[in-house]
Amino acid sequence: MIRNEETICAPATSGSGAIAVIRISGSRSLKICQKIFTPADNKIKFTESKGFTVIYGDIHDGEEVIDDVLVSVFRMPHSYTGEDSVEISCHASRYIQGKILELLIENGARIAAPGEFTQRAFLNGKMDLSQAEAVADLVASSSEASHRIAINQVRGGFSAEISKLRSELLRFTSLIELELDFGEEDVEFADRSELRSIVIHVKELADNLASSFRLGNVIKNGIPVTITGKPNSGKSTLLNALLNEERALVSEIPGTTRDSIEDTIIINGLEYRFIDTAGLHDSSDIVENLGIKKTHEKIIQASVILLVDEVTETPELINKRADIIRDGIKGSDKRLIILINKIDLGNQNNISFLKEKISLEAGDSLLFISARELTGLDDLKVKLGEIIEKDRISPENIIITNLRHYEALIHVSESLKRVINGLDNKIPEDLIAIDIRQAIHYLGEITGEITTDEILGNIFRDFCIGK
Amino acid sequence: MIRNEETICAPATSGSGAIAVIRISGSRSLKICQKIFTPADNKIKFTESKGFTVIYGDIHDGEEVIDDVLVSVFRMPHSYTGEDSVEISCHASRYIQGKILELLIENGARIAAPGEFTQRAFLNGKMDLSQAEAVADLVASSSEASHRIAINQVRGGFSAEISKLRSELLRFTSLIELELDFGEEDVEFADRSELRSIVIHVKELADNLASSFRLGNVIKNGIPVTITGKPNSGKSTLLNALLNEERALVSEIPGTTRDSIEDTIIINGLEYRFIDTAGLHDSSDIVENLGIKKTHEKIIQASVILLVDEVTETPELINKRADIIRDGIKGSDKRLIILINKIDLGNQNNISFLKEKISLEAGDSLLFISARELTGLDDLKVKLGEIIEKDRISPENIIITNLRHYEALIHVSESLKRVINGLDNKIPEDLIAIDIRQAIHYLGEITGEITTDEILGNIFRDFCIGK
Repeated sequence: MIRNEETICAPATSGSGAIAVIRISGSRSLKICQKIFTPADNKIKFTESKGFTVIYGDIHDGEEVIDDVLVSVFRMPHSYTGEDSVEISCHASRYIQGKILELLIENGARIAAPGEFTQRAFLNGKMDLSQAEAVADLVASSSEASHRIAINQVRGGFSAEISKLRSELLRFTSLIELELDFGEEDVEFADRSELRSIVIHVKELADNLASSFRLGNVIKNGIPVTITGKPNSGKSTLLNALLNEERALVSEIPGTTRDSIEDTIIINGLEYRFIDTAGLHDSSDIVENLGIKKTHEKIIQASVILLVDEVTETPELINKRADIIRDGIKGSDKRLIILINKIDLGNQNNISFLKEKISLEAGDSLLFISARELTGLDDLKVKLGEIIEKDRISPENIIITNLRHYEALIHVSESLKRVINGLDNKIPEDLIAIDIRQAIHYLGEITGEITTDEILGNIFRDFCIGK
Repeated sequence: MIRNEETICAPATSGSGAIAVIRISGSRSLKICQKIFTPADNKIKFTESKGFTVIYGDIHDGEEVIDDVLVSVFRMPHSYTGEDSVEISCHASRYIQGKILELLIENGARIAAPGEFTQRAFLNGKMDLSQAEAVADLVASSSEASHRIAINQVRGGFSAEISKLRSELLRFTSLIELELDFGEEDVEFADRSELRSIVIHVKELADNLASSFRLGNVIKNGIPVTITGKPNSGKSTLLNALLNEERALVSEIPGTTRDSIEDTIIINGLEYRFIDTAGLHDSSDIVENLGIKKTHEKIIQASVILLVDEVTETPELINKRADIIRDGIKGSDKRLIILINKIDLGNQNNISFLKEKISLEAGDSLLFISARELTGLDDLKVKLGEIIEKDRISPENIIITNLRHYEALIHVSESLKRVINGLDNKIPEDLIAIDIRQAIHYLGEITGEITTDEILGNIFRDFCIGK
């Protein structure tokens, strides 16, 4: 276990709730707290407290009482960081929190760097690197799907998969390196055909994991959706209808109300991120008038394009607008949903006529809605849910969401491709061994068995303070 | 102890930190948690856990793990509410918090009303009503001074004072009522002159407490300051200079950064609230041009008026503007500080000349500053600090901040005034007893010995959820 001499502290909660938690970790945690904390029960010897106990008492600055608090004690190695740790649960006043941190610093602690608690957990062997990274994703997860992927990763699902691949490769390299040690004796410990099939198998798994990144990334960051269409077709009415429904749902549970003004919506456990919606309220948002270039710009980041038109529009114009969009998404797996809005203003004949005359290509959808009267929105939600392969999000299925992991897996795949080529072309063992070593290296980078200060620095600087 | 059959739950933290705490209280707290929480150590029988212990484990929804959490257990009566209570410390993801609350509700808890935890603490005799009220003030306290008053009150300083007054009166009424029982026998158990001196003493104390309300109120809500002066005299530069200095200070301690865009500044432990600053950036903010009415409107809510003028201005005009303000604050204890700004653009002669020619009245101050070059701001801060009697804010000095307490104390004082008049005018004992009873009643309302559902409802509805 790596022992860090410095004791760190930071607020672990933020905002303006009823209570706040300040977290302290390091070998001197209890000694530092003792100087500012007096248990209400004077029989308690604080520095001798057992782990997993809570002690009630006062935080004081000399004679002056700052707050009455609950202090939870954790003892090395049975804590989040693996070090002696203390959590002070105080009243959430900004003044009290600032004062307690000030007192901790005066008595020898220092403010933690972002993610430093989790970094210490990693360095002390409490979790591997991909688990540590997933902690940040878990804290940030806002939908059922993004949560499920993050908690699977925190609980080591992904790490176990990577370790399995790595140990299969390790077994073979050790055999090959044994051969190399024997030099010119021309013995063969490693069965070449078995090696080949194992390398192919590992490469397949790495490719599969890498290919899950696209799905994982949109789940983690929200599925990007663009709403487009001619002026006054009801684009902003539609967006507001979707937002309001979700906000009403969310606000049923107090404390979970979203204060964000971002246009994100959670539908059936998936988060959708509506991009470039700033222009929806003015009349400049157009498919036809502003031309093809502007439309293509709008759809470039989206996975789904909602083209909103009116039930009284001619099918020719609708088809023309749809074609402009199709032209921009050609060859990608972006999906087009044509929404014929304002069906409350039309009749069944309008709808039947459009159904017949609007041409759809594979993957396109056509829905009839009234954003104003909230008609057809459920169908739209079902359709949005079909865009991604939701079945893949299960505890058994590992989905990666992290660009660093994706890049490492691509490197693994490339190295293994060279190994397969090498085997096919009877390249000397020592060269093949280098490529296998490289694949092992990149797998080790994911879990942190191989790491550098730079990698660690990059990973943890994006964490919040107190985590 | 009052036992409430319903078990309540609520988030106790808010915002987006590393961890979040969900609080549960009521007789079924542990039973409900047991259904969704599994300790990592399977030897632990959760529902038999002792108070003040922390248990590590998983929150699950059926088979699916939602989060790994720390659960703190508190046992009746040794908890905040006096009931069995549980605090779940989970990752701060919005999804996780919502899910855990959902699971608790599914299993029989209900969402707590605002302040319901504290209300239960009061009903279960863990604190009196004035202490319960101070909990909300403590959570909201943002300056050293407002914190000090709140923590004194939470710790029962004010309650002890009120109880003392009340018991002195109680002793005497019981003697008087004894006399009434003896009816026409004309015995006198209560010494009238002693009673008179005690009533005078209690009334004095009640008056003193009531008179502390003005100070307490500005400390709690921030001392209101208005900045006024002619266009381009540097009013907004001054405000920004003050705001920036404080923000730089605050941001040294991470997690305590203020996200508010309110114009409040903490100087030497006191909060100043700059009111009506919206107009500072345009040129319509004027003393002379807009006339007397507008100026008086601006200063009506302020305790301190900063009149900003330029070093190159004529003393006649400055005096004229100062007079308009003085006219508006006549008879109040509002204070005028004349700030001669832009001294970097003037010379010592300008300053000497103005010093000589600007006329000051009792309580006025004259300072020379450069808001742009941050000169003289420390003098201004010292001057602002002198506005209120800071010495009064000590643990020994009770300061009231609550309008309800103030009104009750005024009632106490009025009742006791009638008692003194009654004694002086030899009014019959039974009438005097009514007024003493009334004073006792109002003192009891403060601490909650006498209360109604309506009073409780009014008090706790302003609390945050989870407190």
